[in-house]
Amino acid sequence: MLSEKYLRMTQLSSSIGLAYRAALQRAAEIGGENVFDYSMGNPSVPAPEQFADAVVEIVRRTPHIELHSYCHSGGAPALREAIVADLNARFATQYCPEDIFIASGAAGAMAHALRAVVSPGEEVITFAPFFPEYAPYVDGAGGILKVVPANIDTFQINFEAFEQLICEKTAAVIIDSPNNPTGVVYTEQTLRRLAEILEAKQKQFGHPIYLLSDEPYREIVFSGFVVPCVPKYYTNTLVCYSFSKSLSIPGQRLGYIAVAEDCAGREHLLPMFSQISRFIGHDSTSVLIQLAAAKTIGQMADLSVYERNKNLLYPALLEMGYECVEPGGTFYLFPRSLEPDANAFCAKAQEENLFLVPGDTFGCKGHFRLSYCVPTEKVERSLDAFYRLIQHYQRRR
Amino acid sequence: MLSEKYLRMTQLSSSIGLAYRAALQRAAEIGGENVFDYSMGNPSVPAPEQFADAVVEIVRRTPHIELHSYCHSGGAPALREAIVADLNARFATQYCPEDIFIASGAAGAMAHALRAVVSPGEEVITFAPFFPEYAPYVDGAGGILKVVPANIDTFQINFEAFEQLICEKTAAVIIDSPNNPTGVVYTEQTLRRLAEILEAKQKQFGHPIYLLSDEPYREIVFSGFVVPCVPKYYTNTLVCYSFSKSLSIPGQRLGYIAVAEDCAGREHLLPMFSQISRFIGHDSTSVLIQLAAAKTIGQMADLSVYERNKNLLYPALLEMGYECVEPGGTFYLFPRSLEPDANAFCAKAQEENLFLVPGDTFGCKGHFRLSYCVPTEKVERSLDAFYRLIQHYQRRR
Repeated sequence: MLSEKYLRMTQLSSSIGLAYRAALQRAAEIGGENVFDYSMGNPSVPAPEQFADAVVEIVRRTPHIELHSYCHSGGAPALREAIVADLNARFATQYCPEDIFIASGAAGAMAHALRAVVSPGEEVITFAPFFPEYAPYVDGAGGILKVVPANIDTFQINFEAFEQLICEKTAAVIIDSPNNPTGVVYTEQTLRRLAEILEAKQKQFGHPIYLLSDEPYREIVFSGFVVPCVPKYYTNTLVCYSFSKSLSIPGQRLGYIAVAEDCAGREHLLPMFSQISRFIGHDSTSVLIQLAAAKTIGQMADLSVYERNKNLLYPALLEMGYECVEPGGTFYLFPRSLEPDANAFCAKAQEENLFLVPGDTFGCKGHFRLSYCVPTEKVERSLDAFYRLIQHYQRRR
Repeated sequence: MLSEKYLRMTQLSSSIGLAYRAALQRAAEIGGENVFDYSMGNPSVPAPEQFADAVVEIVRRTPHIELHSYCHSGGAPALREAIVADLNARFATQYCPEDIFIASGAAGAMAHALRAVVSPGEEVITFAPFFPEYAPYVDGAGGILKVVPANIDTFQINFEAFEQLICEKTAAVIIDSPNNPTGVVYTEQTLRRLAEILEAKQKQFGHPIYLLSDEPYREIVFSGFVVPCVPKYYTNTLVCYSFSKSLSIPGQRLGYIAVAEDCAGREHLLPMFSQISRFIGHDSTSVLIQLAAAKTIGQMADLSVYERNKNLLYPALLEMGYECVEPGGTFYLFPRSLEPDANAFCAKAQEENLFLVPGDTFGCKGHFRLSYCVPTEKVERSLDAFYRLIQHYQRRR
């Protein structure tokens, strides 16, 4: 008989998908140029040209056995070496290739990392607002997801609430900075405080608490902001990275887990990740893509459109009267909705052909997410709609 | 704390991996040319040239959004359409693109299919000898794997034992023809009988029993043998296919599930597969690889070396006195070991620089697997070693 678990999952619709499909439908009615679809976080910029060049060179010149045979379950050695060289040069870290596990995107990295460090019944803490896919990944590891309420004034960590939630059963803590959906970057101060608490709790409970740092947006950082290197602050860190944004190749499914130097259980983790791949039936991703990424590391897609869009949208929304914490990176804004029920607000916005996602999806009511990975001219033309929307609410007051 | 489950998995060593590493070590000592490594099933022939041409054309000409954006979780429409056109033309089936789910190899396909049709506590039946990775996939679905003992005279199904095992808790049955490790192809008669029993048991128990047909070797079929189209015999069939052998691209991780026409729960299965991807954190595979396969479908790697090797090895072994059921496809032979303990036999074989895998790994003692996806000259030069090995045992009698 069909599995109840997965059948039930098909019956829940994601509000991101709903907004996206509503935008598509409206586009069919009034023309795509008149619809402002801020629903999906789908990178919009081209991959660096070197990526295509690398693919062509590899497919033409690499011996069959090297290119097409089964890959080591940890990933292609060339890619693991290139990642380590890049990380160590940029962050003065001491990774070696055996610390890197190639995964299918940051999603695959996170799901693997959770299965490795969480046992059934243990707890995982994350911070609202958060990427909703953490829930199925934690479930897959048999863990229980606990969510620290948002600090809506800064979207830094609400430490008081965190200290109340952390307990003997806490196996892991997930952070996501630059953050989806707020765009906020955790400060050095936030990371220091977080590390202090985790160190103290590890001692108190007598077992490691792993910090899983989800970093798909690490390279989309705006002028004036710095993304600290998380493993420098806390030893038991697993960084989950994706090439989806830096190389703008989400469809190629490539990312990795980097196990920090001196991380507890370091010698076991890589072999465990390989066993997890066996268990779920999915090894990382295409060797061709891995080799192409190895040759392209250090290049970057032209991510400037995201900052250009942020520089246009963020001050314009503030000036109109929207309230929003300034994003330090990503291609998201997470303003307060103009009525307490963000779902009602987003429905209202659709009347202005603005397709937004209610914050409820990310565990933070009263806000909405705006994904501005769209052409800048679209952002410009959407400002009037945002203005009409706030005017509608101001008239009601 | 580290997950006990996956940590324990790292401590079990696969006998395939052990034989492979032993072969590598011997090669370092006496030179690779003197070592006959029959351990791994790693396709040895080049991908068809059209595959590289397709990759180059796609990476040069496909618009960024189409090539690099997130893919539909069911797979790239172009590939699903190409698969359906190919299947329907070859087998007069009636698949439509919505019946195809793109997975990372037959492994990913099988793991997904099991999660969809098996609920925790239900049973899955397979037939010895069998591909050992079914055990973790069934475990991942929360199911219990039951193994029908081998019919060692033909390696067709031992129906008597099967009828004793099948029960109300049976949710799915896995077949693998052409078979790894025997190379045997199930006859039409076998499939008819299997379908009859399954139909009767479905009626008796009042619920569907899914037939998961694992077909990575469907295209490696030797002269005189025909691989029947399984869904023609039984409606509730999910075919799990891989391009690893047909296009000889195992490193690119590409396969699919095909849901048969009129399969019970057909309308739910594809959305469930997508949810399973979410749950495990891994979407199918690279869009570039999917689009390249779409353009290459109908082409085939030159698989003739496998038949050439079989035609050399199989009669030669019989003539020396080995006992072996004739393989109808794949690149495996599964002869009886020359002493009851296949592990001891394979250790003895290593003294002749023959690296073989004991049948115990596949749930069938007293046999050994021989993967002849190696250059033909290697097969030729290995015959003396097989001869010395059997002489050793004959002298002992």
